[in-house]
Amino acid sequence: MAQQHLDPADPKAGPVAGDSLAAYLQTQATEFLRALRQHRETGGATSNGTEDTVDAARALRRSARRISGTLHTFRPLLDTDWSEGMRPELAWLSGTLAREHAYAARLERLMGALHRLSGSSAFPAQGSAAVGTAATGASGPPKGPTPEKSNLTVGAAKAGALLERQLTLARTRSHSAALQALGSSRFHAVADSVAVLASEVPLTQAATTADLKPLAAAAEDRLTDAISGLPLVSAGHPYNAEALVHGLSADTAPQPQDAPWHQVRLLLRLHRYAREVLYGADAPVDVCMLSAGQALDRHRDAAEAASAAASAARTPRIAPATAYALGVLHADQRHEVEAARFAFQRAWSRETVGTP
Amino acid sequence: MAQQHLDPADPKAGPVAGDSLAAYLQTQATEFLRALRQHRETGGATSNGTEDTVDAARALRRSARRISGTLHTFRPLLDTDWSEGMRPELAWLSGTLAREHAYAARLERLMGALHRLSGSSAFPAQGSAAVGTAATGASGPPKGPTPEKSNLTVGAAKAGALLERQLTLARTRSHSAALQALGSSRFHAVADSVAVLASEVPLTQAATTADLKPLAAAAEDRLTDAISGLPLVSAGHPYNAEALVHGLSADTAPQPQDAPWHQVRLLLRLHRYAREVLYGADAPVDVCMLSAGQALDRHRDAAEAASAAASAARTPRIAPATAYALGVLHADQRHEVEAARFAFQRAWSRETVGTP
Repeated sequence: MAQQHLDPADPKAGPVAGDSLAAYLQTQATEFLRALRQHRETGGATSNGTEDTVDAARALRRSARRISGTLHTFRPLLDTDWSEGMRPELAWLSGTLAREHAYAARLERLMGALHRLSGSSAFPAQGSAAVGTAATGASGPPKGPTPEKSNLTVGAAKAGALLERQLTLARTRSHSAALQALGSSRFHAVADSVAVLASEVPLTQAATTADLKPLAAAAEDRLTDAISGLPLVSAGHPYNAEALVHGLSADTAPQPQDAPWHQVRLLLRLHRYAREVLYGADAPVDVCMLSAGQALDRHRDAAEAASAAASAARTPRIAPATAYALGVLHADQRHEVEAARFAFQRAWSRETVGTP
Repeated sequence: MAQQHLDPADPKAGPVAGDSLAAYLQTQATEFLRALRQHRETGGATSNGTEDTVDAARALRRSARRISGTLHTFRPLLDTDWSEGMRPELAWLSGTLAREHAYAARLERLMGALHRLSGSSAFPAQGSAAVGTAATGASGPPKGPTPEKSNLTVGAAKAGALLERQLTLARTRSHSAALQALGSSRFHAVADSVAVLASEVPLTQAATTADLKPLAAAAEDRLTDAISGLPLVSAGHPYNAEALVHGLSADTAPQPQDAPWHQVRLLLRLHRYAREVLYGADAPVDVCMLSAGQALDRHRDAAEAASAAASAARTPRIAPATAYALGVLHADQRHEVEAARFAFQRAWSRETVGTP
């Protein structure tokens, strides 16, 4: 099934041999090392974050995710001890590096929503720029977004100030944690492993002649299985109001209904990387798959923003007007969650219609 | 254009003469008097409200609206002084009678939403039944809905209690106002006018031979003109997030963006009554028009519920958790507003596709 699905756009009709896997991993490892060098050269742990530093950190995360995902999908073709040891370290690294950026983006999303909900025509350009300065490796505390709050009503302005305080604090902590991580011996061990990978990929003996396609197809099967478990029928009905069910429940944990969508997001990423291994630069751009992935990113971002608004509302001694604004904001972001599911359903149904 | 639109389903291909107008008004007047009698017999101003009293009050409003709307649409065919004098009186009556029911329905809608948002599986049957007992003419204060609040979280429970207190108070006042209205000389004058109408409709001399269709078509033109002014393109895009813009604005007045939709709701009703005049019991059921009307009712109800939640949140000295729940509730109902607009756009586009 998945095999058939891969075939139609397959630029290599025959089997794809293990050397493609080695080449892909070497490319990503080289990219990782290049990004690391760039990160150090553009300031890294000493200067204030520049745009180049941010780009470098992003490139570092990008290749770390690809190496980790590829080790997972093509596990049987790689030295087990080595790949099993490396994957959690790469996950730790990309997770640590991602956090600062995530807090900055979450604050920007929430401030943007507050302005939209206040009918404020003057959405601040600063808010948007501020995310760009969230540079892992900056020595000072990160500059928080300083959106123009004069257009916000009292409740919204107070809610914005509270969110800014809380998320900027979280971001500063993540920034320090990232700095610490990049200076740690644990990180140096990861960098050394990647350096080894750049010159020599520890393939098993059978790998060189093995066909990569069955393993890539298995990754796609895991994706389609997970998608078939999603409530796509209701997600395809606009305004089904499902994302806000439990919007007022006492449970402060992340909404359990989101978990299968987050899981599909990860599996979609693994599927995309497996296609990159198989087809390299020739990989046909799958627009539906791209939209589906973007919808799931938006789903994740909105879910986390909604949760941040709910959590801010539990701050002791806030004014009722602040709490009210945070309630509106929470519901707004949960509707974004619902909208993202709808968008995913649309993109995915176009994707599967394209399948013979 | 509108003339063409009326034609396809027209069971009477030729002109429709003034006697149809007279017959329709007489039928509605008779229905009004029957409902009034039933209302008095089933308790009216003395007993506790029964289901029959509620039905009678509804029938009274129903015929009052139809008489008033028909006087408006076919104004040139009726004695001007008489019809101009009668319309505001009928509007006063149906408005006064409608208010108690509206508060009860609003409370039920909001309590239902609170339970949905709390993920409460046990939606109380009492809440639903309570609306039925909102009987204009009951002597005691109306029984408020007593939904099971044990399934609500603290904030939602407090929000529910606050809404129940405020809307029950408003309902009790409307109940007293309706009682007072039904005992007033002003009401007796209306009833007398309707009694005259039941036996003799004050048509102009030209009316008996005049064709009713041009006036009905003009009513339809007013409707289609108003609809063409609605933002239907954005309404047709699911999750356009327009209904919640200004959701946090300082302005406490009803959202100005709702007004054109409310206006279309009234014009659609006039159009429906005009069709009833023309075609009587033979009037072909227009499913799309029916859905469009239901969507606009839902739009109005959700908009008013959202506004009630926002207004409750401005109660002094409420707890932040209460305010938060009211914020979520407000946003939820504004999304219902958006969903209703989407539903209207769908229904209306099917309606116009059906037009040759």
